[in-house]
This record gives sequence, structure tokens and C-alpha cells, in this order.
Amino acid sequence: MRCPDGEEFAISTDTMVENVHFFPDDPPETLGRKLLRCNLSDLAAMGARPHAYTLNVTVPRGGRHDENWFAAFSRGLAEDQKHYGVHLIGGDTTSISGPLVLSATVFGLLRHNTALRRSTARPGDDIWVTGTIGDAALGLLVLQGNLQDPSAFLVERYHLPRPRTGLQLNGIVSAAMDISDGLIQDCGHIAKESGVQLVVDTEAVPLSSAAAALGREWLMQRLCGGDDYELLLTCTPGHSKALQAACQAAEIPVHRIGTVRAGSGVRLLDGEGHEILPKQGGWQHF
Amino acid sequence: MRCPDGEEFAISTDTMVENVHFFPDDPPETLGRKLLRCNLSDLAAMGARPHAYTLNVTVPRGGRHDENWFAAFSRGLAEDQKHYGVHLIGGDTTSISGPLVLSATVFGLLRHNTALRRSTARPGDDIWVTGTIGDAALGLLVLQGNLQDPSAFLVERYHLPRPRTGLQLNGIVSAAMDISDGLIQDCGHIAKESGVQLVVDTEAVPLSSAAAALGREWLMQRLCGGDDYELLLTCTPGHSKALQAACQAAEIPVHRIGTVRAGSGVRLLDGEGHEILPKQGGWQHF
Repeated sequence: MRCPDGEEFAISTDTMVENVHFFPDDPPETLGRKLLRCNLSDLAAMGARPHAYTLNVTVPRGGRHDENWFAAFSRGLAEDQKHYGVHLIGGDTTSISGPLVLSATVFGLLRHNTALRRSTARPGDDIWVTGTIGDAALGLLVLQGNLQDPSAFLVERYHLPRPRTGLQLNGIVSAAMDISDGLIQDCGHIAKESGVQLVVDTEAVPLSSAAAALGREWLMQRLCGGDDYELLLTCTPGHSKALQAACQAAEIPVHRIGTVRAGSGVRLLDGEGHEILPKQGGWQHF
Repeated sequence: MRCPDGEEFAISTDTMVENVHFFPDDPPETLGRKLLRCNLSDLAAMGARPHAYTLNVTVPRGGRHDENWFAAFSRGLAEDQKHYGVHLIGGDTTSISGPLVLSATVFGLLRHNTALRRSTARPGDDIWVTGTIGDAALGLLVLQGNLQDPSAFLVERYHLPRPRTGLQLNGIVSAAMDISDGLIQDCGHIAKESGVQLVVDTEAVPLSSAAAALGREWLMQRLCGGDDYELLLTCTPGHSKALQAACQAAEIPVHRIGTVRAGSGVRLLDGEGHEILPKQGGWQHF
């Protein structure tokens, strides 16, 4: 694999395990795509453009994953390869007496020393997110039988993340990461690695109409659930317009959800600016 | 990951699954090392020098792989990182209700367009192998209780391959691959990809003294067994001396085991030059 002059590789690798990261009856078309897209989301957060990937497939013995299954699995991957401009450069196939295991390592390209990082947020920056937050977490609750989703939008968001590739954020944002563990936890990652405090206005966190229809009582599930694969960004107020213009050019919605301050950790505010305090196993609203 | 000017990456990726590629009671020190070394062997066969790797570990639930296990696992990897000059640049850790699964993607560096290939053997070339062949296959038979190995040499060879990194074979050999599926099968790979026939003098295939002590009746197990991780090379006779000098400089034994001809497939000869013919499920000696 050759690297163009003046560029370097950003690399992301992920493993997905049946019954942990997906269900045995998930559509095979979506499985490889989800794995690929999670990694592409990571590349997007580094500001790298998709290039190539390797794929290791560990197939349960017993024949449940037959030629039809693989045809659908491959068809999904082929679609995404075309859509995101990545190609498969190799891999490994093994068998297992156990669940299906998929590992991908994805390579992106970017100019030397331009990778966006989590460790460079500064007090005074604004906090922004792309898209809407919490849909995939609610989609998982739907699949688990805990919620109704007449539109099937939430489940679709759980099965197929939309990595925010194609954004040009270098020189605009101060820090970036993709939201995979849940908004609050990932805000915590930026806070820790940058040595700052992130204050999030929970009312400003964008939500889809499908999520809004379920009501405010699912707020914490939306903010704590994972699998969003949206971008969490920090940006000095002077660059707000440039950030909005870059996102508009890529037709990606972006919303300001809070402020970076001196300090540590994450603080959540409700619509009146009152703090929502953490309690054992979750958050408590005062 | 940056690439020096004028160089490119050779990439190898492998997955190892408990109960398929290793035993649950294999020493944890050797597991990561075996995975790393299998990939390094692949890099050696391409003529690339080791650079970096990613590692994805999927850990069985239930606590069998505790801190002691991981300490030993990591200690083994740390030794090999030092020995082979590679460093870990990232990875993923996941859980599984099932066996341990390890995936590594290893990156090597080489000058543009100098990668050794399997598809470039030519009629008239000699066939060579490094080291001794069949030790790991016999080691597996020992572990399965089918053979005695008082020296423990064969089991050691099964647990810890010795990748032939450090050889400078570019411009000397015509084709190369590493022997992982078994000598005969891998000869078949070169035959197929190069569009030639490989004729192997089975008496010339080098064997260790531990293997020799078991007698001639294990010949076919040695030639068909896998996990050798030696190099299979083809080389025009005019370059024999250069090949031997390069191997001597790296202190790696190398032996001529046959000839490349026009045709297809693999032919095996016994000590008198008579052909050993394939039969259902193996080979028959006439």
C-alpha cells in the first residue's frame, strides 16, 4: 500500500462480535457495512479521507452462514465500498465453535500533521455535534422490545451509522472525535484528554423527530446510549461561521450544544441552566 | 502512520481462534507471539522489514483470562516487539461468549515495487527452502498424543515460529512465499500463480534431527503439515551463490529441494527419482 507524497495514514480498527455488537438475526447486508462505517466514522473524526481496508471474518461452524448469507453480506459491503470510495486489500477467513466475529482495519489518508485530535480543546471553545443524538440507542431499545418505533427510523440508525466523511474541518475545529460510547461519555474523553471541562446544554442536543415523538423521559438514554457515529467537535467562537459553512457545504447538520471551560469532567444543564447531577448508575435531575 | 519517501507498506493480517489455531492451555506467553510471528513471516516472504502492528483481542466472558493471563500474554508480545523491531500502534478489545479470538494486522516497509511475489517463478529455476520442514506439524501430533518428543523441540516449533526476517533477497530470488499451509500445498500455490510445475525431490527436503529421529514413515506428515513459517523460494541457477551468501549473512540455513518446469501442479520424487503419486486423501509411494 503506497502513500502519496506529503500524506500519511490514519488507521482505525474495530471488532464486532455476535450477541455483543449485533444480533444473530440482523440483516447480513448491514453487518459488514456497520463495521466499515464505524471505522470510517473514526477516520472522519481524524479528518482523513477513506482509502482501503482489510477484513477478517471468523465464521461459526455449522453452516448457518451459507452462500446466501455471504452473498448478502458481500453485497452490502460492495455498496459501501462504492459509496465511500474504499477498497478491500486483503484479510483472513477462519472458523470458530462460537459466535460470528468480524474485524476490520481501515486506512484513511490525510496531509502530514493535520490529524484532528481529542486532546486540543481549549476553555472558551464551543461544543458542537453533527446530526442527531440518541437515535441508535433508542433503536437498540426498540429491538430489545422496550420501545415502539412505527417509522423504523431508529432501528435503521442502529443498524447503519452514517459516518460524517467528506467534511473539511482542519484549521476550523480545535478538537474532534466520533460519538460511539454515548455523548456524555465521549464528552468525558475530550475533557480528560484536553484537561478541560465540558458543559453541555442538554436542551440544545439535537434529536430526530422519531426520538422527539417518544418524549423527554428518554433524554438520558439518548445522551448516554452509544452508536451515534456523529462528530463531537470543539471550536473557538471566532470559527463558528466557518464550521457552519463547512458543514453546510457537505449537507451535514451541525448544532452548538455547550461550552468548554477550565476544570475537568462533564457538566449537564437543563433548559433553565440548572445542573443535572450524576448519581449512582446514571444521572439525577434536580 | 507515516511512510518514508520511496517506500511503501506490505501488510499482513491473520486471525487465530482458540481450539482451531491454538489450545486453551497453550502458554499465554506464546499466543500473541505466534500471531505476530505468523504475520512477520508473511512480511519476510514479501521482503519487507517489520514496522508496526494493530491487535484486536476478543476475550471470553467468565474471567478465565485474568490479569495474570494478560500479564503473561503481554510479556511475550513485549519480548517479540523488541526482538523484531515492531511497535503496537492500536487495537480493540471486545468480549465474547465463546473462545478467545486474536486478530493482528502487521505493517512492513519496503522500497517501491520491490515486493517479492508468488507469481514470478520461471521454468529452469531451482526451488529452495529455509530451515527445516515439518517440525511444527510433528509438534502438533505430539500435543495431540500421537507422537513422543523427548527433546520438546517439535512442540516448541509448533508454539513459536521463527519468521525469516532480515534476509535481503530482492534481485536474487524469482519468487517467494512463506510455508504456512504445508510445503506441498504452498508449492502448489506458487505453481498455480506462476503458471509452472514444481518438482520436489523429497529426499532433499531438510529435516531437523528431532524429526529425523522419528523415521521416514512421517515423511508425508512433514511435507503436508502446516505452520512451518519457513521461506519457499525459487531462484535461477545463476543466482544460487548469491542466495546462499545472503542466507549465510543472516545465519539462516537454506537448501535446494527441486526444480521449476513448464507445466502445472506439484510433482514429488523419491530418493531414486521415482515419482510419488497422489491418491485420495494423501500421497501413494510407488
